[in-house]
Amino acid sequence: MATLLHIDSAVFPEGSASRDLTATFVKSWLEQHPEGKVVYRDLAASPLPHLDITAASAGAGNALRAELAAELAEADAVLIGAPMYNFTIPSTLKAWLDQVIIVGHNAGPESTLASTPFTIVASRGGSYAPGTPREEFEFVQTYLQKVLTGMFGATDIDFIVPELTLAHSKPEMAELVPLAEASRAKAQEEATQKAKALAARLAA
Amino acid sequence: MATLLHIDSAVFPEGSASRDLTATFVKSWLEQHPEGKVVYRDLAASPLPHLDITAASAGAGNALRAELAAELAEADAVLIGAPMYNFTIPSTLKAWLDQVIIVGHNAGPESTLASTPFTIVASRGGSYAPGTPREEFEFVQTYLQKVLTGMFGATDIDFIVPELTLAHSKPEMAELVPLAEASRAKAQEEATQKAKALAARLAA
Repeated sequence: MATLLHIDSAVFPEGSASRDLTATFVKSWLEQHPEGKVVYRDLAASPLPHLDITAASAGAGNALRAELAAELAEADAVLIGAPMYNFTIPSTLKAWLDQVIIVGHNAGPESTLASTPFTIVASRGGSYAPGTPREEFEFVQTYLQKVLTGMFGATDIDFIVPELTLAHSKPEMAELVPLAEASRAKAQEEATQKAKALAARLAA
Repeated sequence: MATLLHIDSAVFPEGSASRDLTATFVKSWLEQHPEGKVVYRDLAASPLPHLDITAASAGAGNALRAELAAELAEADAVLIGAPMYNFTIPSTLKAWLDQVIIVGHNAGPESTLASTPFTIVASRGGSYAPGTPREEFEFVQTYLQKVLTGMFGATDIDFIVPELTLAHSKPEMAELVPLAEASRAKAQEEATQKAKALAARLAA
């Protein structure tokens, strides 16, 4: 029985592309692996406090940090909904990282998370793909890739990137609606297939 | 009389390179411009809540966001202490950005902050300078440059970058102490001179 740690961080509970896709992923994962366990953490509904002097000083001796680190250590796979706010991850997700990354405990050379698979749904209102004018404003994929490798030594990081999610609500983006719909359909298919493959791999 | 908005975000109140340098900057600024006003916001001592659905929906109609936006709009210059935590800004500083950036109010084409000077003290434990092995892990300068230009249209962004601040406390970095001390001295001199120049410019 494998455990999936599912983290959402989109502010809005409804109409969120990242939440829709992580839900699709979880559904597909459980269909493939019905005995699988899912641990859910909603960083918008239950935000974590910012790292403060007490928690920073205590490291793994802090109850909340120890709980978050244990939850991560017990996960066979991690799924993160990471919408782009102001070109990078929400403060709620940064707070999770600042609390859960404990150098000398689970981060740094001692990391036991190097082989943990991370799947990240990196939704964004526009497009920041290579070759687009906003390419250099992309600090979700670029950042999460580096922090997970640099801190945990993670080697198995996969992204699902639904883009142009604001096309439906912004009149100036109306002509991009077909591209947004194609991106969403592709992301839904990827979420379904990647979850299925991951569940099969973990259950094996 | 010019107003300087001074923001600190380092978790530790003592022994913080970014706090030491923003303090040097403020002292030099006030020496040059004794009638100057300094508005201080300590994001570690008084952390802001994460952006939630209520604040996100209300935009400038939310009391806290309106207060933060007014504070920023009234500043003739902004000084930000931005230590690197896990390769990017602390969650407290991201929370400030997520609350204060209000598209259609102070961000986007309507921004009135394009000419506001931003000085950022981007301290870091190691070195992430161009040519170093960790160059690609730098998400403080790269990110803040993009978010301030992309959201506020800021054109006057200056960085002071004390690096290797962990050299004194980490035995494996002992040989880097001279470089750390040189970096600190350079940053102190820059903070003094940049503040003086800025105060002279604003008072003119």
